[in-house]
Amino acid sequence: MNAIDFKITGVDANSRARRGKLITPHGVVQTPAFMPVGTKASVKALTPGHLEAAGTQILLSNTYHLHVRPGEDVIAEAGGLHSFMGWEKPILTDSGGFQVFSLAKLNKVDDAGVMFQSHVDGAKLFIGPKEATGIQEKLGADIIMAFDQCPPHDASRAEVEAATQRTIRWAGECRKHHSRNDQALFGIVQGGMFEDLRTACCRELSAMDFPGYAIGGVSVGEPKEDLHRIMEFTTPLLPEDKPRYLMGVGQPEDILVAVRAGVDLFDCVLPTRNARSGELYVAAGRMKIRNEKFKRDFTPVEKDCPCYLCSNFTRAYLRHLFISGELLAHTLATVHNVTFYHRLMSRLRAAIQSGRLGEEFGKKSGK
Amino acid sequence: MNAIDFKITGVDANSRARRGKLITPHGVVQTPAFMPVGTKASVKALTPGHLEAAGTQILLSNTYHLHVRPGEDVIAEAGGLHSFMGWEKPILTDSGGFQVFSLAKLNKVDDAGVMFQSHVDGAKLFIGPKEATGIQEKLGADIIMAFDQCPPHDASRAEVEAATQRTIRWAGECRKHHSRNDQALFGIVQGGMFEDLRTACCRELSAMDFPGYAIGGVSVGEPKEDLHRIMEFTTPLLPEDKPRYLMGVGQPEDILVAVRAGVDLFDCVLPTRNARSGELYVAAGRMKIRNEKFKRDFTPVEKDCPCYLCSNFTRAYLRHLFISGELLAHTLATVHNVTFYHRLMSRLRAAIQSGRLGEEFGKKSGK
Repeated sequence: MNAIDFKITGVDANSRARRGKLITPHGVVQTPAFMPVGTKASVKALTPGHLEAAGTQILLSNTYHLHVRPGEDVIAEAGGLHSFMGWEKPILTDSGGFQVFSLAKLNKVDDAGVMFQSHVDGAKLFIGPKEATGIQEKLGADIIMAFDQCPPHDASRAEVEAATQRTIRWAGECRKHHSRNDQALFGIVQGGMFEDLRTACCRELSAMDFPGYAIGGVSVGEPKEDLHRIMEFTTPLLPEDKPRYLMGVGQPEDILVAVRAGVDLFDCVLPTRNARSGELYVAAGRMKIRNEKFKRDFTPVEKDCPCYLCSNFTRAYLRHLFISGELLAHTLATVHNVTFYHRLMSRLRAAIQSGRLGEEFGKKSGK
Repeated sequence: MNAIDFKITGVDANSRARRGKLITPHGVVQTPAFMPVGTKASVKALTPGHLEAAGTQILLSNTYHLHVRPGEDVIAEAGGLHSFMGWEKPILTDSGGFQVFSLAKLNKVDDAGVMFQSHVDGAKLFIGPKEATGIQEKLGADIIMAFDQCPPHDASRAEVEAATQRTIRWAGECRKHHSRNDQALFGIVQGGMFEDLRTACCRELSAMDFPGYAIGGVSVGEPKEDLHRIMEFTTPLLPEDKPRYLMGVGQPEDILVAVRAGVDLFDCVLPTRNARSGELYVAAGRMKIRNEKFKRDFTPVEKDCPCYLCSNFTRAYLRHLFISGELLAHTLATVHNVTFYHRLMSRLRAAIQSGRLGEEFGKKSGK
């Protein structure tokens, strides 16, 4: 029995874009889909009610952060992450590989895993493929990720090659240790900016027959052209019939490129993080709502947006909330940005289904 | 034509408590009622949707803060405060007297008003009774307050006497300048801890025939017994047929004492402020949710509470949100505390109506 099932329900004639249905133990995700980031078991400033209203189908949380605090045992005792955070729809947990290498103070990395100090209290902790899988089984997400080593974008070829080899070995270890049959374990492709390493990694992971694959090691500071090149190169190398997840991407225009390349799932902190700094996504680009020019602008942030912000409040009010340091500013701006991303995905899905992706989204524009 | 209408629909046989209906241009307020504080046109961390669900009938906002930022002209252009903040139920604005004297750097106080520097940017501003009334007319609340001088609780008798005399003169000025007949202007009784000054102030203000009266100059740091003594002394001196509003009070047990004394309206920052520091109101008192003992407590904050927090999340989750610094902590805790206050008022109203106030609320307990 497979934990998830993935059906492709439509393909675009002029690109590799596909329309799909990802069936998980907690419900169906229409793809391509965007996952808001709930790092510490909360999408910052939003209630589950806000997420549902915004159109969220699946969200992402993080193994490293939840291991550090409150600990996977607390969450398991709560009945798992869905129950703990009051979200009964699908959840994906990242394995924590990226966070261990980017946030923690590393003590020792070897083939068994990583010894590091918690960024919160300095506690010594160890996570390897076995531990990451065990933690994620306790968290209980619908989709869990293999533990990987993500090198920085400017790492040498030798470093990237070593990290890629280790990622492949770890993927096998995760597969071996994973035992819950109500969870799907996805493999993560590394290989940095090197196409031959990406190719080799795709080949090795495909041979392990994961129920889904992620492209990692992008959105780590590389130039935009490298991001686009690597995702356009890597995506078609992944099994056609399995869901493909591009990790940490991205801006609307990057998502469009990736959808055309055949990516099905996305996550990114940008809509939520930008919201909290007062940057609102709108069709025309990004609106910095703190700007003085919005002081007496009594129109909604986006005229045709059905979100709670745009249906009830003006630019002038949202600006006032930001300028006054009111917490509600974060909630309303985040509701809007998450809604914006979900509406974009919904329009992309409809365009693929109706064969109008090229016409509606042009060749280059993110609109 | 009166802007508001107040009907007493029930009285308690064993106290001065009364059950009423305050009819305003934006709807009916069942009294005794609690007004959450939305100082800067936002009840911190809550959407209007959260407020409605919590049972908020009327909320309070602040003239001083809104004058400083964004300015009453902006709000008037937005169509008034209701429209600006997306709250179509009743609003009361405090006159700003308290804030001018407590927050601003004072430059000069005389019978015309107060010259002060904004606590935000140091701008020189002037507010007197005429200005406070004009600003509140532009804000457009259903109930507005006379501009008063609130002396500190340890002021000398001479200082309190002078402030009380000035408050009476200013009340007359506000009455004279107030012209909107869709707003009710309430007078504010000062007099500090001196009963004879309170008596004189009540007499003078009653003669001006305001549509409602507030007791100010309490909850300014005085001992609890002074608070109770002054509110029990002052309330019965106010006209029986007009709504009575006790400003800035208070803890549930203080509200109970005041309801027994015949107070109809309350506001206080405690439920919202305490929520943001992780203090939850529950029947048994206050729960400090950050406490380690809640780490694995998978019960709701309050078992029979119908609020969004208690219906969907556990103590362990709320604690995790606070410990992790998640913004959602503030929203969920505030939803609960505001709901707690409204449920308390609702139970008080029902008890007065059914003649069971003494039985249900005892003589001393706030429960």
